[in-house]
Amino acid sequence: MRILEAAVAEEEEGARPILQRREEPLMGRSVGGDVHLTPPSNFGVVDGGIFRSGFPISDNFPFLEALNLRSIVYLCPEPYPAANAEFVRSRGIRLFQFGIEGSREAFATISNHAIMETLGVLLDVRNHPILIHCKRGKHRTGCLVGCFRKLQNWCLSSVHEEYIKFASVKARPSDMKFIEMFDVSCMMQCVLHILYRYHGFGNHTRRLAYQKIS
Amino acid sequence: MRILEAAVAEEEEGARPILQRREEPLMGRSVGGDVHLTPPSNFGVVDGGIFRSGFPISDNFPFLEALNLRSIVYLCPEPYPAANAEFVRSRGIRLFQFGIEGSREAFATISNHAIMETLGVLLDVRNHPILIHCKRGKHRTGCLVGCFRKLQNWCLSSVHEEYIKFASVKARPSDMKFIEMFDVSCMMQCVLHILYRYHGFGNHTRRLAYQKIS
Repeated sequence: MRILEAAVAEEEEGARPILQRREEPLMGRSVGGDVHLTPPSNFGVVDGGIFRSGFPISDNFPFLEALNLRSIVYLCPEPYPAANAEFVRSRGIRLFQFGIEGSREAFATISNHAIMETLGVLLDVRNHPILIHCKRGKHRTGCLVGCFRKLQNWCLSSVHEEYIKFASVKARPSDMKFIEMFDVSCMMQCVLHILYRYHGFGNHTRRLAYQKIS
Repeated sequence: MRILEAAVAEEEEGARPILQRREEPLMGRSVGGDVHLTPPSNFGVVDGGIFRSGFPISDNFPFLEALNLRSIVYLCPEPYPAANAEFVRSRGIRLFQFGIEGSREAFATISNHAIMETLGVLLDVRNHPILIHCKRGKHRTGCLVGCFRKLQNWCLSSVHEEYIKFASVKARPSDMKFIEMFDVSCMMQCVLHILYRYHGFGNHTRRLAYQKIS
Protein backbone atom coordinates (compact mmCIF):
# COMPACT_ATOMS: atom_id res chain seq x y z
CA MET A 1 0.00 0.00 0.00
CA ARG A 2 1.27 3.45 -0.85
CA ILE A 3 0.21 6.59 0.90
CA LEU A 4 0.53 9.49 -1.47
CA GLU A 5 -0.49 12.86 -0.31
CA ALA A 6 0.66 16.12 1.10
CA ALA A 7 -0.91 15.60 4.48
CA VAL A 8 0.88 12.36 5.24
CA ALA A 9 3.07 14.04 7.81
CA GLU A 10 0.06 15.48 9.60
CA GLU A 11 -0.20 14.30 13.18
CA GLU A 12 -2.81 11.57 13.41
CA GLU A 13 -4.79 13.35 16.07
CA GLY A 14 -3.67 16.66 14.66
CA ALA A 15 -5.19 19.64 13.04
CA ARG A 16 -8.62 18.29 12.17
CA PRO A 17 -10.34 16.92 15.24
CA ILE A 18 -12.70 14.04 14.50
CA LEU A 19 -15.63 15.40 16.44
CA GLN A 20 -15.60 18.65 14.57
CA ARG A 21 -15.51 16.83 11.28
CA ARG A 22 -18.17 14.36 12.33
CA GLU A 23 -20.75 17.13 12.26
CA GLU A 24 -21.10 16.34 8.61
CA PRO A 25 -23.70 18.19 6.61
CA LEU A 26 -26.36 16.29 4.79
CA MET A 27 -24.41 15.20 1.77
CA GLY A 28 -24.09 17.94 -0.79
CA ARG A 29 -23.88 21.42 0.46
CA SER A 30 -27.00 23.35 -0.08
CA VAL A 31 -30.75 23.07 0.01
CA GLY A 32 -32.24 24.65 -3.03
CA GLY A 33 -29.10 26.51 -4.05
CA ASP A 34 -28.23 26.84 -7.69
CA VAL A 35 -24.91 24.97 -7.81
CA HIS A 36 -25.49 21.52 -9.23
CA LEU A 37 -23.25 18.84 -7.86
CA THR A 38 -22.20 15.83 -9.89
CA PRO A 39 -21.30 12.72 -7.90
CA PRO A 40 -18.79 10.37 -9.51
CA SER A 41 -20.33 7.60 -11.61
CA ASN A 42 -21.72 4.66 -9.67
CA PHE A 43 -21.63 6.65 -6.45
CA GLY A 44 -23.09 5.17 -3.30
CA VAL A 45 -23.06 5.53 0.46
CA VAL A 46 -21.69 2.45 2.17
CA ASP A 47 -22.13 3.58 5.74
CA GLY A 48 -21.92 6.76 7.76
CA GLY A 49 -18.65 8.35 6.60
CA ILE A 50 -17.87 5.68 3.96
CA PHE A 51 -18.59 6.25 0.26
CA ARG A 52 -17.93 4.30 -2.94
CA SER A 53 -17.78 5.24 -6.61
CA GLY A 54 -16.20 4.91 -10.00
CA PHE A 55 -13.23 7.04 -10.96
CA PRO A 56 -13.84 10.71 -10.08
CA ILE A 57 -13.24 13.25 -12.82
CA SER A 58 -12.77 16.96 -12.30
CA ASP A 59 -16.51 17.58 -12.73
CA ASN A 60 -16.97 15.63 -9.52
CA PHE A 61 -14.56 17.61 -7.37
CA PRO A 62 -17.14 20.11 -6.03
CA PHE A 63 -19.27 17.16 -4.94
CA LEU A 64 -16.31 15.41 -3.30
CA GLU A 65 -15.45 18.65 -1.58
CA ALA A 66 -18.96 18.74 -0.15
CA LEU A 67 -18.35 15.31 1.37
CA ASN A 68 -15.55 16.86 3.40
CA LEU A 69 -13.37 13.82 2.70
CA ARG A 70 -10.50 13.00 4.97
CA SER A 71 -9.23 10.05 2.90
CA ILE A 72 -9.56 8.21 -0.39
CA VAL A 73 -8.87 4.52 -0.96
CA TYR A 74 -7.84 4.05 -4.60
CA LEU A 75 -7.79 0.46 -5.78
CA CYS A 76 -6.04 0.67 -9.16
CA PRO A 77 -2.31 0.27 -9.84
CA GLU A 78 -2.14 3.19 -12.28
CA PRO A 79 -0.77 6.50 -10.96
CA TYR A 80 -3.37 9.04 -9.90
CA PRO A 81 -4.01 11.55 -12.71
CA ALA A 82 -2.48 14.98 -12.16
CA ALA A 83 -5.83 16.73 -11.66
CA ASN A 84 -6.93 14.22 -9.04
CA ALA A 85 -3.55 14.31 -7.32
CA GLU A 86 -3.74 18.08 -7.15
CA PHE A 87 -7.29 17.91 -5.79
CA VAL A 88 -6.36 15.62 -2.90
CA ARG A 89 -3.14 17.54 -2.23
CA SER A 90 -4.85 20.90 -2.07
CA ARG A 91 -7.64 19.59 0.20
CA GLY A 92 -5.31 17.73 2.53
CA ILE A 93 -7.01 14.44 1.68
CA ARG A 94 -4.96 11.35 2.46
CA LEU A 95 -4.74 9.01 -0.52
CA PHE A 96 -4.28 5.32 0.18
CA GLN A 97 -3.44 3.49 -3.03
CA PHE A 98 -3.79 -0.28 -3.18
CA GLY A 99 -2.85 -1.31 -6.68
CA ILE A 100 -5.15 -4.16 -7.59
CA GLU A 101 -5.15 -5.28 -11.21
CA GLY A 102 -8.52 -4.96 -12.86
CA SER A 103 -8.40 -8.01 -15.09
CA ARG A 104 -11.26 -10.42 -15.00
CA GLU A 105 -9.89 -12.97 -12.57
CA ALA A 106 -7.23 -10.98 -10.78
CA PHE A 107 -9.27 -9.93 -7.85
CA ALA A 108 -10.45 -13.45 -7.30
CA THR A 109 -6.87 -14.46 -6.62
CA ILE A 110 -5.76 -11.45 -4.60
CA SER A 111 -4.23 -12.19 -1.24
CA ASN A 112 -6.23 -11.89 1.93
CA HIS A 113 -3.40 -9.73 3.21
CA ALA A 114 -4.15 -6.94 0.74
CA ILE A 115 -7.83 -7.03 1.57
CA MET A 116 -7.08 -6.96 5.27
CA GLU A 117 -4.81 -3.99 4.88
CA THR A 118 -7.46 -2.13 2.87
CA LEU A 119 -10.20 -2.98 5.34
CA GLY A 120 -7.95 -1.81 8.15
CA VAL A 121 -7.88 1.64 6.56
CA LEU A 122 -11.62 1.55 5.96
CA LEU A 123 -12.51 0.52 9.50
CA ASP A 124 -10.41 3.18 11.13
CA VAL A 125 -12.81 6.02 11.82
CA ARG A 126 -9.92 8.45 11.95
CA ASN A 127 -9.83 8.10 8.17
CA HIS A 128 -13.50 9.02 7.77
CA PRO A 129 -15.16 10.48 5.78
CA ILE A 130 -13.55 8.16 3.25
CA LEU A 131 -14.21 7.37 -0.43
CA ILE A 132 -13.36 4.00 -1.98
CA HIS A 133 -13.01 3.94 -5.72
CA CYS A 134 -11.51 2.01 -8.58
CA LYS A 135 -12.27 2.58 -12.25
CA ARG A 136 -15.96 1.76 -12.53
CA GLY A 137 -16.85 1.14 -8.89
CA LYS A 138 -18.09 -2.31 -9.80
CA HIS A 139 -15.55 -5.09 -9.30
CA ARG A 140 -12.62 -4.07 -7.10
CA THR A 141 -14.75 -1.67 -5.08
CA GLY A 142 -17.60 -4.18 -5.07
CA CYS A 143 -15.37 -6.92 -3.67
CA LEU A 144 -13.99 -4.66 -0.98
CA VAL A 145 -17.43 -3.47 0.07
CA GLY A 146 -18.61 -7.09 0.01
CA CYS A 147 -15.88 -8.07 2.47
CA PHE A 148 -16.77 -5.06 4.60
CA ARG A 149 -20.40 -6.19 4.68
CA LYS A 150 -19.28 -9.60 5.85
CA LEU A 151 -17.46 -7.91 8.70
CA GLN A 152 -20.77 -6.25 9.47
CA ASN A 153 -22.30 -9.72 9.53
CA TRP A 154 -24.60 -9.23 6.58
CA CYS A 155 -25.89 -12.51 5.25
CA LEU A 156 -24.27 -13.53 1.99
CA SER A 157 -27.33 -13.13 -0.20
CA SER A 158 -27.70 -9.50 0.87
CA VAL A 159 -24.00 -8.89 0.25
CA HIS A 160 -24.38 -10.34 -3.24
CA GLU A 161 -27.54 -8.32 -3.88
CA GLU A 162 -25.63 -5.14 -3.16
CA TYR A 163 -22.66 -6.26 -5.29
CA ILE A 164 -25.01 -6.87 -8.21
CA LYS A 165 -26.76 -3.54 -7.74
CA PHE A 166 -23.49 -1.72 -8.45
CA ALA A 167 -21.97 -4.16 -10.95
CA SER A 168 -25.24 -4.50 -12.86
CA VAL A 169 -24.82 -6.54 -16.03
CA LYS A 170 -21.06 -6.67 -15.41
CA ALA A 171 -21.45 -8.76 -12.23
CA ARG A 172 -18.78 -11.48 -12.08
CA PRO A 173 -19.31 -14.85 -10.44
CA SER A 174 -15.58 -14.88 -9.58
CA ASP A 175 -15.96 -11.71 -7.52
CA MET A 176 -19.00 -13.11 -5.75
CA LYS A 177 -17.09 -16.29 -5.00
CA PHE A 178 -14.20 -14.20 -3.67
CA ILE A 179 -16.54 -12.39 -1.30
CA GLU A 180 -18.04 -15.67 -0.19
CA MET A 181 -14.64 -17.16 0.54
CA PHE A 182 -13.31 -14.16 2.43
CA ASP A 183 -12.70 -15.28 5.99
CA VAL A 184 -13.66 -12.51 8.40
CA SER A 185 -11.81 -14.15 11.25
CA CYS A 186 -8.54 -13.07 9.64
CA MET A 187 -9.55 -9.50 10.46
CA MET A 188 -9.63 -10.10 14.19
CA GLN A 189 -6.09 -8.99 14.83
CA CYS A 190 -6.58 -5.89 12.74
CA VAL A 191 -9.74 -4.98 14.60
CA LEU A 192 -8.12 -5.58 17.94
CA HIS A 193 -5.26 -3.38 16.84
CA ILE A 194 -7.63 -0.57 15.96
CA LEU A 195 -9.45 -0.92 19.25
CA TYR A 196 -6.15 -0.90 21.06
CA ARG A 197 -5.10 2.27 19.32
CA TYR A 198 -8.36 3.87 20.33
CA HIS A 199 -8.15 2.90 23.95
CA GLY A 200 -8.05 6.02 26.08
CA PHE A 201 -8.63 8.23 23.10
CA GLY A 202 -11.34 10.20 24.84
CA ASN A 203 -14.93 9.57 25.80
CA HIS A 204 -16.38 11.23 22.76
CA THR A 205 -14.57 9.18 20.14
CA ARG A 206 -16.74 7.05 17.93
CA ARG A 207 -15.90 3.44 18.48
CA LEU A 208 -16.08 0.43 16.29
CA ALA A 209 -18.91 -1.88 17.12
CA TYR A 210 -17.52 -5.23 18.05
CA GLN A 211 -18.32 -8.33 19.96
CA LYS A 212 -16.16 -9.52 22.77
CA ILE A 213 -13.67 -11.97 21.34
CA SER A 214 -13.08 -15.01 23.48
CA MET B 1 -49.73 11.87 7.13
CA ARG B 2 -50.35 9.60 10.06
CA ILE B 3 -48.01 9.07 12.94
CA LEU B 4 -48.56 5.66 14.40
CA GLU B 5 -46.44 4.56 17.23
CA ALA B 6 -46.25 4.15 20.94
CA ALA B 7 -43.62 6.80 21.42
CA VAL B 8 -45.61 9.59 19.83
CA ALA B 9 -46.14 11.28 23.15
CA GLU B 10 -42.45 11.22 23.93
CA GLU B 11 -40.99 14.68 24.40
CA GLU B 12 -39.18 15.71 21.26
CA GLU B 13 -35.95 16.44 23.07
CA GLY B 14 -36.77 13.81 25.61
CA ALA B 15 -35.44 10.49 26.67
CA ARG B 16 -33.10 9.80 23.78
CA PRO B 17 -30.65 12.64 23.32
CA ILE B 18 -29.54 13.11 19.73
CA LEU B 19 -25.86 13.29 20.46
CA GLN B 20 -25.87 10.03 22.27
CA ARG B 21 -27.69 8.36 19.42
CA ARG B 22 -25.47 9.95 16.78
CA GLU B 23 -22.55 7.85 17.97
CA GLU B 24 -23.85 5.23 15.64
CA PRO B 25 -21.90 2.02 15.30
CA LEU B 26 -20.66 0.93 11.93
CA MET B 27 -23.85 -0.47 10.56
CA GLY B 28 -24.54 -3.95 11.81
CA ARG B 29 -23.46 -4.78 15.25
CA SER B 30 -20.42 -6.95 15.36
CA VAL B 31 -17.15 -7.57 13.64
CA GLY B 32 -16.69 -11.24 13.03
CA GLY B 33 -19.47 -12.35 15.31
CA ASP B 34 -21.62 -15.28 14.36
CA VAL B 35 -25.04 -13.62 14.11
CA HIS B 36 -25.86 -13.02 10.47
CA LEU B 37 -27.91 -9.94 9.77
CA THR B 38 -30.33 -9.73 6.88
CA PRO B 39 -31.05 -6.25 5.57
CA PRO B 40 -34.45 -5.72 3.96
CA SER B 41 -34.54 -6.26 0.20
CA ASN B 42 -33.19 -3.42 -1.90
CA PHE B 43 -31.54 -1.86 1.13
CA GLY B 44 -29.32 1.15 0.71
CA VAL B 45 -27.77 4.01 2.64
CA VAL B 46 -29.02 7.37 1.40
CA ASP B 47 -26.95 9.56 3.66
CA GLY B 48 -25.63 9.52 7.20
CA GLY B 49 -28.63 8.48 9.29
CA ILE B 50 -30.98 7.93 6.31
CA PHE B 51 -31.67 4.47 4.89
CA ARG B 52 -33.98 3.06 2.20
CA SER B 53 -35.35 -0.38 1.45
CA GLY B 54 -38.16 -2.59 0.34
CA PHE B 55 -40.72 -3.85 2.84
CA PRO B 56 -39.01 -5.25 5.94
CA ILE B 57 -40.06 -8.72 7.06
CA SER B 58 -39.42 -10.20 10.48
CA ASP B 59 -36.13 -11.72 9.31
CA ASN B 60 -34.88 -8.16 8.93
CA PHE B 61 -35.75 -6.95 12.42
CA PRO B 62 -32.35 -7.78 13.99
CA PHE B 63 -30.68 -5.78 11.23
CA LEU B 64 -33.05 -2.86 11.69
CA GLU B 65 -32.42 -3.01 15.40
CA ALA B 66 -28.70 -2.70 14.71
CA LEU B 67 -29.41 0.53 12.81
CA ASN B 68 -30.74 1.98 16.04
CA LEU B 69 -33.63 3.55 14.14
CA ARG B 70 -35.48 6.47 15.58
CA SER B 71 -38.09 6.67 12.81
CA ILE B 72 -39.53 4.93 9.78
CA VAL B 73 -41.19 6.61 6.81
CA TYR B 74 -43.65 4.15 5.29
CA LEU B 75 -44.98 5.12 1.88
CA CYS B 76 -47.84 2.66 1.30
CA PRO B 77 -51.52 3.16 2.16
CA GLU B 78 -51.97 -0.36 3.56
CA PRO B 79 -51.92 -0.76 7.35
CA TYR B 80 -48.62 -1.86 8.82
CA PRO B 81 -48.60 -5.63 9.40
CA ALA B 82 -48.98 -6.70 13.01
CA ALA B 83 -45.41 -8.00 13.31
CA ASN B 84 -43.95 -4.75 11.98
CA ALA B 85 -46.27 -2.65 14.12
CA GLU B 86 -45.18 -4.60 17.19
CA PHE B 87 -41.53 -4.19 16.23
CA VAL B 88 -41.72 -0.40 15.97
CA ARG B 89 -43.87 -0.18 19.09
CA SER B 90 -41.52 -2.24 21.22
CA ARG B 91 -38.44 -0.33 20.02
CA GLY B 92 -40.02 3.09 20.44
CA ILE B 93 -39.58 3.81 16.74
CA ARG B 94 -41.77 6.57 15.36
CA LEU B 95 -43.68 5.46 12.28
CA PHE B 96 -44.64 8.13 9.77
CA GLN B 97 -47.08 6.72 7.25
CA PHE B 98 -47.65 8.54 3.98
CA GLY B 99 -50.14 6.47 2.02
CA ILE B 100 -49.11 6.73 -1.61
CA GLU B 101 -50.79 4.40 -4.07
CA GLY B 102 -48.35 2.12 -5.83
CA SER B 103 -50.04 1.96 -9.21
CA ARG B 104 -48.02 2.71 -12.28
CA GLU B 105 -48.87 6.35 -12.76
CA ALA B 106 -50.08 7.33 -9.31
CA PHE B 107 -46.84 8.66 -8.01
CA ALA B 108 -46.35 10.73 -11.10
CA THR B 109 -49.48 12.65 -10.20
CA ILE B 110 -48.99 12.93 -6.47
CA SER B 111 -49.20 16.40 -5.02
CA ASN B 112 -46.11 18.37 -4.21
CA HIS B 113 -47.63 18.89 -0.79
CA ALA B 114 -47.31 15.21 0.13
CA ILE B 115 -43.72 15.11 -1.05
CA MET B 116 -42.90 18.25 0.89
CA GLU B 117 -44.40 16.84 4.04
CA THR B 118 -42.44 13.62 3.64
CA LEU B 119 -39.21 15.46 2.92
CA GLY B 120 -39.81 17.62 5.96
CA VAL B 121 -39.74 14.48 8.11
CA LEU B 122 -36.66 13.20 6.29
CA LEU B 123 -34.71 16.42 6.61
CA ASP B 124 -35.31 16.79 10.31
CA VAL B 125 -32.26 15.27 11.95
CA ARG B 126 -34.23 14.72 15.13
CA ASN B 127 -35.91 11.86 13.25
CA HIS B 128 -32.59 10.20 12.38
CA PRO B 129 -31.58 7.44 12.04
CA ILE B 130 -34.54 6.99 9.72
CA LEU B 131 -35.59 4.30 7.25
CA ILE B 132 -37.72 5.05 4.18
CA HIS B 133 -39.52 2.11 2.66
CA CYS B 134 -42.44 1.17 0.45
CA LYS B 135 -43.09 -2.28 -0.96
CA ARG B 136 -40.10 -2.90 -3.20
CA GLY B 137 -38.01 0.19 -2.50
CA LYS B 138 -38.04 1.05 -6.18
CA HIS B 139 -40.74 3.50 -7.21
CA ARG B 140 -42.22 5.40 -4.29
CA THR B 141 -38.99 5.27 -2.31
CA GLY B 142 -37.01 6.00 -5.45
CA CYS B 143 -39.08 9.11 -6.19
CA LEU B 144 -38.73 10.39 -2.66
CA VAL B 145 -34.97 9.83 -2.60
CA GLY B 146 -34.75 11.46 -6.03
CA CYS B 147 -36.43 14.61 -4.70
CA PHE B 148 -34.13 14.50 -1.70
CA ARG B 149 -31.12 14.35 -4.02
CA LYS B 150 -32.42 17.40 -5.85
CA LEU B 151 -32.52 19.21 -2.53
CA GLN B 152 -28.89 18.21 -2.17
CA ASN B 153 -28.29 19.79 -5.58
CA TRP B 154 -27.30 16.61 -7.33
CA CYS B 155 -27.43 17.01 -11.09
CA LEU B 156 -30.40 15.27 -12.66
CA SER B 157 -28.44 12.58 -14.51
CA SER B 158 -26.87 11.41 -11.23
CA VAL B 159 -30.26 11.41 -9.54
CA HIS B 160 -31.63 9.28 -12.36
CA GLU B 161 -28.62 6.97 -12.26
CA GLU B 162 -29.34 6.26 -8.61
CA TYR B 163 -33.06 5.80 -9.26
CA ILE B 164 -32.27 3.23 -11.94
CA LYS B 165 -29.77 1.42 -9.73
CA PHE B 166 -32.55 0.62 -7.28
CA ALA B 167 -35.45 0.23 -9.72
CA SER B 168 -33.38 -1.87 -12.11
CA VAL B 169 -35.48 -3.26 -14.96
CA LYS B 170 -38.61 -1.82 -13.29
CA ALA B 171 -37.47 1.78 -13.79
CA ARG B 172 -40.37 3.98 -14.86
CA PRO B 173 -40.03 7.01 -17.11
CA SER B 174 -43.01 8.56 -15.30
CA ASP B 175 -41.13 8.43 -11.99
CA MET B 176 -38.05 9.95 -13.56
CA LYS B 177 -40.17 12.69 -15.04
CA PHE B 178 -41.76 13.28 -11.65
CA ILE B 179 -38.32 13.72 -10.08
CA GLU B 180 -37.28 16.05 -12.86
CA MET B 181 -40.38 18.21 -12.42
CA PHE B 182 -40.12 18.43 -8.65
CA ASP B 183 -39.50 22.06 -7.79
CA VAL B 184 -37.08 22.30 -4.88
CA SER B 185 -37.95 25.91 -4.26
CA CYS B 186 -41.26 24.75 -2.78
CA MET B 187 -39.23 23.28 0.08
CA MET B 188 -37.80 26.60 1.15
CA GLN B 189 -40.44 27.33 3.74
CA CYS B 190 -40.13 23.86 5.16
CA VAL B 191 -36.37 24.14 5.41
CA LEU B 192 -36.58 27.56 7.02
CA HIS B 193 -39.07 26.14 9.50
CA ILE B 194 -36.65 23.38 10.43
CA LEU B 195 -33.79 25.81 10.79
CA TYR B 196 -35.96 28.00 12.94
CA ARG B 197 -36.85 25.11 15.19
CA TYR B 198 -33.18 24.29 15.59
CA HIS B 199 -32.10 27.77 16.45
CA GLY B 200 -30.60 27.80 19.91
CA PHE B 201 -30.91 24.06 20.23
CA GLY B 202 -27.34 23.71 21.48
CA ASN B 203 -23.93 24.04 19.94
CA HIS B 204 -23.46 20.36 19.37
CA THR B 205 -26.60 19.77 17.35
CA ARG B 206 -26.05 18.63 13.80
CA ARG B 207 -27.37 21.26 11.47
CA LEU B 208 -28.77 21.11 8.02
CA ALA B 209 -26.42 22.37 5.37
CA TYR B 210 -28.06 25.25 3.59
CA GLN B 211 -27.30 28.27 1.53
CA LYS B 212 -28.41 31.67 2.60
CA ILE B 213 -31.75 32.30 1.01
CA SER B 214 -32.18 35.77 -0.37
